[in-house]
Amino acid sequence: MPSIDINCDMGESFGPWVMGQDTELMPHITAANIACGFHAGDPDVMLATVRAAIAADVAIGAHPGLPDLQGFGRRVMAVTPDEVYALTVYQVGALQAIARSQGGRLHHVKTHGALYTLTARDPALADAVARAVADVDPALPIYVANAAIAQATRERGLRAVYEVYADRSYQDDGTLTPRSQPHAMIEDVDQAIAQVKRMVKEGVVRALSGKDVPITADTLCIHGDQPGAALFARRIRAALEAEGIEIRTV
Amino acid sequence: MPSIDINCDMGESFGPWVMGQDTELMPHITAANIACGFHAGDPDVMLATVRAAIAADVAIGAHPGLPDLQGFGRRVMAVTPDEVYALTVYQVGALQAIARSQGGRLHHVKTHGALYTLTARDPALADAVARAVADVDPALPIYVANAAIAQATRERGLRAVYEVYADRSYQDDGTLTPRSQPHAMIEDVDQAIAQVKRMVKEGVVRALSGKDVPITADTLCIHGDQPGAALFARRIRAALEAEGIEIRTV
Amino acid sequence: MPSIDINCDMGESFGPWVMGQDTELMPHITAANIACGFHAGDPDVMLATVRAAIAADVAIGAHPGLPDLQGFGRRVMAVTPDEVYALTVYQVGALQAIARSQGGRLHHVKTHGALYTLTARDPALADAVARAVADVDPALPIYVANAAIAQATRERGLRAVYEVYADRSYQDDGTLTPRSQPHAMIEDVDQAIAQVKRMVKEGVVRALSGKDVPITADTLCIHGDQPGAALFARRIRAALEAEGIEIRTV
Amino acid sequence: MPSIDINCDMGESFGPWVMGQDTELMPHITAANIACGFHAGDPDVMLATVRAAIAADVAIGAHPGLPDLQGFGRRVMAVTPDEVYALTVYQVGALQAIARSQGGRLHHVKTHGALYTLTARDPALADAVARAVADVDPALPIYVANAAIAQATRERGLRAVYEVYADRSYQDDGTLTPRSQPHAMIEDVDQAIAQVKRMVKEGVVRALSGKDVPITADTLCIHGDQPGAALFARRIRAALEAEGIEIRTV
Repeated sequence: MPSIDINCDMGESFGPWVMGQDTELMPHITAANIACGFHAGDPDVMLATVRAAIAADVAIGAHPGLPDLQGFGRRVMAVTPDEVYALTVYQVGALQAIARSQGGRLHHVKTHGALYTLTARDPALADAVARAVADVDPALPIYVANAAIAQATRERGLRAVYEVYADRSYQDDGTLTPRSQPHAMIEDVDQAIAQVKRMVKEGVVRALSGKDVPITADTLCIHGDQPGAALFARRIRAALEAEGIEIRTV
Repeated sequence: MPSIDINCDMGESFGPWVMGQDTELMPHITAANIACGFHAGDPDVMLATVRAAIAADVAIGAHPGLPDLQGFGRRVMAVTPDEVYALTVYQVGALQAIARSQGGRLHHVKTHGALYTLTARDPALADAVARAVADVDPALPIYVANAAIAQATRERGLRAVYEVYADRSYQDDGTLTPRSQPHAMIEDVDQAIAQVKRMVKEGVVRALSGKDVPITADTLCIHGDQPGAALFARRIRAALEAEGIEIRTV
Repeated sequence: MPSIDINCDMGESFGPWVMGQDTELMPHITAANIACGFHAGDPDVMLATVRAAIAADVAIGAHPGLPDLQGFGRRVMAVTPDEVYALTVYQVGALQAIARSQGGRLHHVKTHGALYTLTARDPALADAVARAVADVDPALPIYVANAAIAQATRERGLRAVYEVYADRSYQDDGTLTPRSQPHAMIEDVDQAIAQVKRMVKEGVVRALSGKDVPITADTLCIHGDQPGAALFARRIRAALEAEGIEIRTV
Repeated sequence: MPSIDINCDMGESFGPWVMGQDTELMPHITAANIACGFHAGDPDVMLATVRAAIAADVAIGAHPGLPDLQGFGRRVMAVTPDEVYALTVYQVGALQAIARSQGGRLHHVKTHGALYTLTARDPALADAVARAVADVDPALPIYVANAAIAQATRERGLRAVYEVYADRSYQDDGTLTPRSQPHAMIEDVDQAIAQVKRMVKEGVVRALSGKDVPITADTLCIHGDQPGAALFARRIRAALEAEGIEIRTV
């Protein structure tokens, strides 16, 4: 039976500031990428989010980011591989301990924002993240795009969990159409659902050119920060299940 | 054979700023309390300090503090038990992962500065730290003063490692003479060494009143931030060894 | 013609996190207390808030707080008068420059959260704030409670603008009933409006005991973080104007 | 009589961490670039440094940087012109108020680290800084390299104060030889002094190619973080004075 995981960024509140719709989204996903305090989240938020994930039987992921709270970890910074290694170990360890303290366990790692961008294109930074995760726990998979981080993950002997999008279009090489280009976003929900079905059942995606290109769809990334995110998550989940696709943690 | 551990705060640099004499002190101690990024330390400093401790066969301790970099974690803040629980789990977990990533392991926890002060006098905050450590790893001892934190540590089923000072005088109830009072500091090195010898060999300390009071001396705390700290550490270590006292990790 | 100012905390967003209902509230108030980056706000938020205040012809106030973003400046910290002096000058100066850069000018200062609490009860910290404001610009008034900060403000030759609340009850000494006690909050809007009318027109407030006590009502503090805040502001403003009370900046 | 200003970065301590040799250097310079809390410095350090500058009759400059304490503002970040505008106004305003509170006045602005690098090469970011300074106080000059920031400074109607180095070699276009290339540093003190003399008296520098190229030498930048910095400052100052060059603030 074909299956797919559904992941979403969670725990992005900080101190008195609330962000996201964690409570509404948690029932519809199978993996939570939880911010670790550098770009969002703080120990209290992380603890509450881990508890909510455990209660909903959602897999707990560490979501490390660059040290830039004001910029939400989205501003690219000139960090070195050594710095990325250290900040990844630190953040993954912090969340791992919080998960363990609540009787849960860390399931995966996914980088955030500018760190995601940097490790997609820079092999040395990608390897720094992969080494960090392998050195903390080689059983942890990394959620990846089809990019430098995927190769580094495999080379370090870790499992790469390939991420796909419902609401983004693809190019002939299997990468996302940049948002700066036309037709990057898929706004029709039925079309988005249809794209994911083919990815899971046939292992292909129709690129913007009209060509079918092969794709690995281990996990579907849902954006939690958009209006209607929970509704969309529930709807796509129901549609996939109706097609005989099991929704489960990888 | 009587024995004692020697612990010292380490890894208190931050970013471009260097603090302490870690390199000089490391050969003379048996336990390092390593700052975890909230009052001092950053992931790079923590990683370098863990490597140095492993190389010197010194036990690695997590040294969590309040989130106050500018105040070096020394300013008392009105934190709740829930906040203390979360920030302790977070910081202990971060250092534990860094230790593990380098092939080492976390040995103990000791609170820093205002968090040390608060958990000495407030049973609810003391219990928050003890629960946090127990929930991360119940095999981790806590380094304590003879205060609320000691009782909370035992009540949560953890080992309490009692800390003594060479350069501080004691009162009849076995607590330190406050620094605001006369004769709080012992400035004569020979007198300091003699005090530690009696603590370890006889289990007593001569209080300021002249009375001998019982004391548990599991570990000797060395201040790393004073001029001549490394020299003092080497000298006291040699003097204790000459008396047949073994210097070793608890 | 009797008059009163209406002030409200503003600019409490930070980075990607939005807080408050600034846009809805701005038309109904005459003075904005704008966070200065230590407990909330960042340079971008401050700039946008200053622009909005200028556009709405609302007086611009600096709202300095303790350096505690996660705790929103609400956790009391053991700060010294020297530290309070320096952090007040810093924050007031930052906002003053932002106001000037947009063609506006700084109108007043009001401390935030735990700094408000500390300067209400500790004369040395109150004096530190008053000195700081006097040293930056002696023409700036401080918005105060009837407490240590009021006395320090006058002693340093600054104007003290006395703040009253519509939704809080008072005690016989003219101070607020602590929230921990019954009947601290006034939940009936009509009663709240009636209380403010008497304060402005008669200079008295009926204390919980039933006794009328004298009170100075220069400015009314509106809480912007409650649901319906803008509606309440509009309603109280209209009710006061209907009574012949002018709403204007002090 | 030919003259030159001598500037140096100052106030780069933070909280408990000390950096630099401010006390030793202050007597030998005429302009201090004081860190403003984003990459180094805190309100207490800024206040102490401003007092020391006033006592030594040294001109007070604001030295704004990127918000990156751990990286000391040296890591390039993807900041927008709007962000740079706001963080410059904020930091300049904070230091200006501290100077004014002590009876001094702000004299100039010089950007730090990665912000210096970015505004040297990116006209939009350079203009953001120039606009920020002009909007705070159009009488403030900016200390600049011969780069984008110089042009933006002039275009916004501000005075550009051109900075030269004693210990760096130059290329044919009047820019510094990058440190990654051979002979970038001038290690011989006599050669360094000779270079500055020609810059001031003849308005030329001998480039690495052997060619004399025109250069404007308004201010000489001294590095305060190197061993022997104070000695070097004293020596070059004496040597220039012996040549009849006056050392004074621009």
